[in-house]
Amino acid sequence: MPELRKDPVTGRWVIIATDRAKRPNQYVKIEEERKGGFCPFCPGNEHSTPAEVLSYRPKDSLPDTEGWWVRVVPNKFPALQPEGDFKRFAEGIYDRMTGIGRHEVLIESPSHEHTYADLPEHQIEEILWAFRDRMVEMRKDRRMRYIMIFKNWGYEAGASIEHPHSQIIALPVVPKRVQEELQGASRYYDFHERCVFCDIIDQERADGLRAVVENDSFLSFLPFAGRFPFETCIVPKVHTAFFSDIQKNEIVDLARIMKQTFSLLKQALNDPPYNFVIHTTPFEGAVDTVYYHWHIEIMPKLTKVAGFEWGTGFYINPTPPENAAEYLRKLAAKPVEAQEEGQIVSATS
Amino acid sequence: MPELRKDPVTGRWVIIATDRAKRPNQYVKIEEERKGGFCPFCPGNEHSTPAEVLSYRPKDSLPDTEGWWVRVVPNKFPALQPEGDFKRFAEGIYDRMTGIGRHEVLIESPSHEHTYADLPEHQIEEILWAFRDRMVEMRKDRRMRYIMIFKNWGYEAGASIEHPHSQIIALPVVPKRVQEELQGASRYYDFHERCVFCDIIDQERADGLRAVVENDSFLSFLPFAGRFPFETCIVPKVHTAFFSDIQKNEIVDLARIMKQTFSLLKQALNDPPYNFVIHTTPFEGAVDTVYYHWHIEIMPKLTKVAGFEWGTGFYINPTPPENAAEYLRKLAAKPVEAQEEGQIVSATS
Repeated sequence: MPELRKDPVTGRWVIIATDRAKRPNQYVKIEEERKGGFCPFCPGNEHSTPAEVLSYRPKDSLPDTEGWWVRVVPNKFPALQPEGDFKRFAEGIYDRMTGIGRHEVLIESPSHEHTYADLPEHQIEEILWAFRDRMVEMRKDRRMRYIMIFKNWGYEAGASIEHPHSQIIALPVVPKRVQEELQGASRYYDFHERCVFCDIIDQERADGLRAVVENDSFLSFLPFAGRFPFETCIVPKVHTAFFSDIQKNEIVDLARIMKQTFSLLKQALNDPPYNFVIHTTPFEGAVDTVYYHWHIEIMPKLTKVAGFEWGTGFYINPTPPENAAEYLRKLAAKPVEAQEEGQIVSATS
Repeated sequence: MPELRKDPVTGRWVIIATDRAKRPNQYVKIEEERKGGFCPFCPGNEHSTPAEVLSYRPKDSLPDTEGWWVRVVPNKFPALQPEGDFKRFAEGIYDRMTGIGRHEVLIESPSHEHTYADLPEHQIEEILWAFRDRMVEMRKDRRMRYIMIFKNWGYEAGASIEHPHSQIIALPVVPKRVQEELQGASRYYDFHERCVFCDIIDQERADGLRAVVENDSFLSFLPFAGRFPFETCIVPKVHTAFFSDIQKNEIVDLARIMKQTFSLLKQALNDPPYNFVIHTTPFEGAVDTVYYHWHIEIMPKLTKVAGFEWGTGFYINPTPPENAAEYLRKLAAKPVEAQEEGQIVSATS
């Protein structure tokens, strides 16, 4: 079974996949072999995934048959496994624990091609409901400390299967990057007695430098210190710590702003590879809800992360967020028929 | 001039390159255009780089002409610039500072192809001396807080020029990842009154599970909680905080273990892309030297870093370090004539 190991210097946890260990010669050539051929996520191929744990489908249809519009299955190659005892060990000075956890795949629609930029808003709403439903379910496992929802789009961003899908992972530890956000937000709150995310929303709405789209419940903007060109954040305007507390009306607004934001990024950057991550608080009770504010991070993968970034945790972003935001706003303001590629390029020159 | 910006939640600094800002259409197609054609780092093309700040060359040859065997020049497209005032500003709730710093390129040999695996040991020694000389020089700028030496090898690891070169950056802040190492090492020292790196060396030498090569002064091994398959660490066996304090005899031993380690990785993984980073302490006085221990990290880039890693700072390593280390040790034990590709592959099966 997989194993969690802690770096003795930084405290960073790593999952070591002992079961399906790759041999050196398996790395020698990494080719993009995923295009074309058999798709395990397309309708009609339900037997080629593990049995579904959730699906939205007509009442009279059977599980693991066609007819669904959203389908959640356990990951066939899970990073963590739900079975087994949760144990911690020493190995000399090192710390390890059994790789207990859950790892599911959410197949976002029957369509092999359409993703957030192209799907109808009501389908994105269904995806968001499924995220929420699985999060509520996974919280019942008391061994777990954190649930993360993310999506990799495009080979360069790490997607190994082409059919649009996202992933849900429940972890037995709060990951380092989440802890950093929690600690930072907590320090800010101690000092100002205000939520740092609420302050960010106020400033981004007031000066409009980095804002892209806004509706009743959500704002999308490019973070002031974004690590990647066109890195984008979507945040609920009302302070909310847990993604799963989202209101029904908010789901409608979130689906709309997601479709708008992803459409703009797709037009501007020619359907870029990206990573999409929902940042929410850990389980209830683990953290004070006054200082944390859930949000979505979208990271287009246009640049290579190199030695400098790996060595320092210090990123170089070659496009100021203000410039990128202005570009996206101009694109949004254009009538649809003018949004041809030639027009887009000339708008920047 | 470039600008440093701080993320208000996590405290992470980002360099925003305002001068040579990239437009969206510049990202649309990233092609590998670096192969073939004109090389600014090859002998005879010295005029196409900024004027050299250091070179090892015959006494009677002129700067910026042929004859050198190691050459250091300012980066033509620096992430940070040495000129200008060092200022800090507020922008509402956000923090920024001018992008003061130094960014140099070290051309590792006149050869366009040969890198650490192929260069003679005495040439690697010369490269190491140049690292040390530049570090000593850069320390004289009192505005700087940290110096980092790194190398990107291969397009996938972020190298934009093919000719083997490394980079030296002086930064006005201590980067986050370095701070994490310092804090972790300090906590370990407070608890155990021992250096965590010295303890790691003792355990790796005692059980031999993850060790690869050892000589009088250095050990190379695969870290217990390595983030990447075949991630490798080279560490001085005697406790030393500053890379630039390296002894002359140690330079010889370091060149030897680097050549051996990189040769094994090249054979095992078919010349993989990698990032190479020297982790040393910040400037003297900034940190207590009892708990920090300089070391080298080598990160082959065989897997894609995806949403899960970006969202959590939690890595999935599909090859246990013990398996990878055993594989490299077997390779090292083979007579050279048997080290053909077919032999390597069959050794794993």
